[in-house]
Amino acid sequence: MASVAHSYLFVPGNRPDRFGKACASGADAVIIDLEDAVPPAEKSSARAAVEAWLNPVLPVVLRINGAETAWFGEDLACCLRPGVQGVMLAKTESIEHIRQLQEALGKTAPILPLIETAQGFWNALEIARSGSVQRLVFGSLDFQLDLGIRGDDDELLHFRSQLVLISRLAGIEAPVDGITTEIDDPAPLRADTTRARRLGFSGKLCIHPKQIAVVNECFVPTTDEIGWARRVMEAAAEARGGAIAVDGKMVDRPVVLKAERVLKDAERRAAGSRE
Amino acid sequence: MASVAHSYLFVPGNRPDRFGKACASGADAVIIDLEDAVPPAEKSSARAAVEAWLNPVLPVVLRINGAETAWFGEDLACCLRPGVQGVMLAKTESIEHIRQLQEALGKTAPILPLIETAQGFWNALEIARSGSVQRLVFGSLDFQLDLGIRGDDDELLHFRSQLVLISRLAGIEAPVDGITTEIDDPAPLRADTTRARRLGFSGKLCIHPKQIAVVNECFVPTTDEIGWARRVMEAAAEARGGAIAVDGKMVDRPVVLKAERVLKDAERRAAGSRE
Amino acid sequence: MASVAHSYLFVPGNRPDRFGKACASGADAVIIDLEDAVPPAEKSSARAAVEAWLNPVLPVVLRINGAETAWFGEDLACCLRPGVQGVMLAKTESIEHIRQLQEALGKTAPILPLIETAQGFWNALEIARSGSVQRLVFGSLDFQLDLGIRGDDDELLHFRSQLVLISRLAGIEAPVDGITTEIDDPAPLRADTTRARRLGFSGKLCIHPKQIAVVNECFVPTTDEIGWARRVMEAAAEARGGAIAVDGKMVDRPVVLKAERVLKDAERRAAGSRE
Repeated sequence: MASVAHSYLFVPGNRPDRFGKACASGADAVIIDLEDAVPPAEKSSARAAVEAWLNPVLPVVLRINGAETAWFGEDLACCLRPGVQGVMLAKTESIEHIRQLQEALGKTAPILPLIETAQGFWNALEIARSGSVQRLVFGSLDFQLDLGIRGDDDELLHFRSQLVLISRLAGIEAPVDGITTEIDDPAPLRADTTRARRLGFSGKLCIHPKQIAVVNECFVPTTDEIGWARRVMEAAAEARGGAIAVDGKMVDRPVVLKAERVLKDAERRAAGSRE
Repeated sequence: MASVAHSYLFVPGNRPDRFGKACASGADAVIIDLEDAVPPAEKSSARAAVEAWLNPVLPVVLRINGAETAWFGEDLACCLRPGVQGVMLAKTESIEHIRQLQEALGKTAPILPLIETAQGFWNALEIARSGSVQRLVFGSLDFQLDLGIRGDDDELLHFRSQLVLISRLAGIEAPVDGITTEIDDPAPLRADTTRARRLGFSGKLCIHPKQIAVVNECFVPTTDEIGWARRVMEAAAEARGGAIAVDGKMVDRPVVLKAERVLKDAERRAAGSRE
Repeated sequence: MASVAHSYLFVPGNRPDRFGKACASGADAVIIDLEDAVPPAEKSSARAAVEAWLNPVLPVVLRINGAETAWFGEDLACCLRPGVQGVMLAKTESIEHIRQLQEALGKTAPILPLIETAQGFWNALEIARSGSVQRLVFGSLDFQLDLGIRGDDDELLHFRSQLVLISRLAGIEAPVDGITTEIDDPAPLRADTTRARRLGFSGKLCIHPKQIAVVNECFVPTTDEIGWARRVMEAAAEARGGAIAVDGKMVDRPVVLKAERVLKDAERRAAGSRE
């Protein structure tokens, strides 16, 4: 797995037959879901199946039910098992929710808070700065519903940009964007992931193994980007710091740093694909 | 009138001959305007005409002059008359403005603050949480002027999204969007209202009776939306809570709730049209 | 020079041969750059060359190195020379940075803080309200890099709108937008400047004399705008304050004020071109 996970694959907690397959999907991380995918009557049996399956060889993220639900307490116990590499907390709305999780987990697993309500969004900076939080995850579908928003493009731009800003202010990894519901047509998924990356997100939630390759691809720098980055680095080296132009564009320090980052991303994904 | 007003029609306070016609326009609410439509020299006579006309059979909203103007005091007296179902306060900029209104009104009429300056926008959450506020109204034209913005689309996206968020945080009804100035061509009005709805607004200011039908229509769920919502509810009922797909898209709890809301909206508008 | 500068031209601090040419470019203001354009080894010699050149006949803005850099102290001394009409502070991130500058400058020159990091953006209102700040400048390239954003359009909309709001709240002049890197093709520059103006910016950074005419043009009201503004003013005068329509659009007070501003802008640029 790359040092930063780009693709996260959900698998329903009540489908243990799919856990292994999900781990073999090529996803940077697998999320076993104990929340929305598991109906109330099956919460208990799903949790038991997850506990029986969990193993340090195939570490996974657990998505657990919100801190205000009846299932939260027993979900916490499940999070302490070996093989849990992170805990995604549904409906994170306050620093209190994070603290309850921190007390139970200690330092065993980083927290990925789902920001999916107006309240959670409002408190997102405090949540992001709470210490155990690895990165924010935007629960875009639930968020739309909570705010009465109908649309996932311009309608959410304000909120996505603010989550990117908040993550940077808190000094944590860039956020993970919400799901794209189309499974069979890769075009909307590709468009959504590309947009997320442009806005400053560095990860994406997936709901089907088919989506993984598309998402991973979107986070690989393109051949054009890599070629441009190399031309910039060469021109910068020759100029020894003076302002110069590459492809008719000014190249100053920020542009050089951007080029460096592109090359670093390319190397990492190349290394990842050899693992 | 539906429980949530979607269409608001302005009528100039100095044109009492039009008040009745406005009430018969099909608008969910009529706003008699004592502010911008009435020149200073006519403020007094307009107020007198409004007071003479006001009646509980045809309740209306009054738009009154800002708290910092010379007319505010006398406008307040007018607001206490029977037949005033709400008070829209022009240039609301602070919680102090709301408090002055609350002291005069008691609990007789809910307040609709017009957010139309940078200052009002900055204090909008405090204003929205002040207790008597029913919903925020975005005075988009004045707002553009105050900030030196030239455009009503992307140029205001940030601000519209933030007003939707603030309304949700305050637990009040979704906000009402500003006017569309085109009267004869319904296309811009339809585009603006559709966009407002997507962003999470649930109402729209109108400046001419011709605009009412277009706005009301925009807030009715489409046949496609209703059909989709029914398929979702059926599939959800059959699946008994497990994750399933409708039309190739995942259906989880947020999607089911969205479908429920669509059907509820459709029923309400259908009931409204039979009244 | 017009009372509000629309076009700002950067010239590298280590190229004194270009200073005079930059001043003759038609730019509303020239910025001699001691930061990114000057490599570390040349900081000292560049500063000396700037000090030797500075003169009250051709006043310029100095862009100085950030308050946390080794060069800041000596740059400050340079700012006290006659002929410095403003100081642009790179990487302004806090009110402390502004205070250090204020202590050194006294009231000799207004400050133009470059907002180009998440931290600077977060503190922008406090920075804008600090007293000596003339207007904010958006360092859009560095800002993208700091937040991991890839794109200069929708990707920065949230941040641009917020800087416009903050400037208005602080009661300072509208902000200056970041550079467009294309030098030979005026189309992207024109598109970027037009968008900046629509969003409420009133200035633009330039990196080449070729860009000045395009930027100045973008801030001149168009013939259509001026014609419309005149029709509005005439109709408004005739109507003596009552609501009327021009070109099928409602004309109320905000629209009249907008028309007045258009005519004022046109007069100012016309006066400027005769100077």
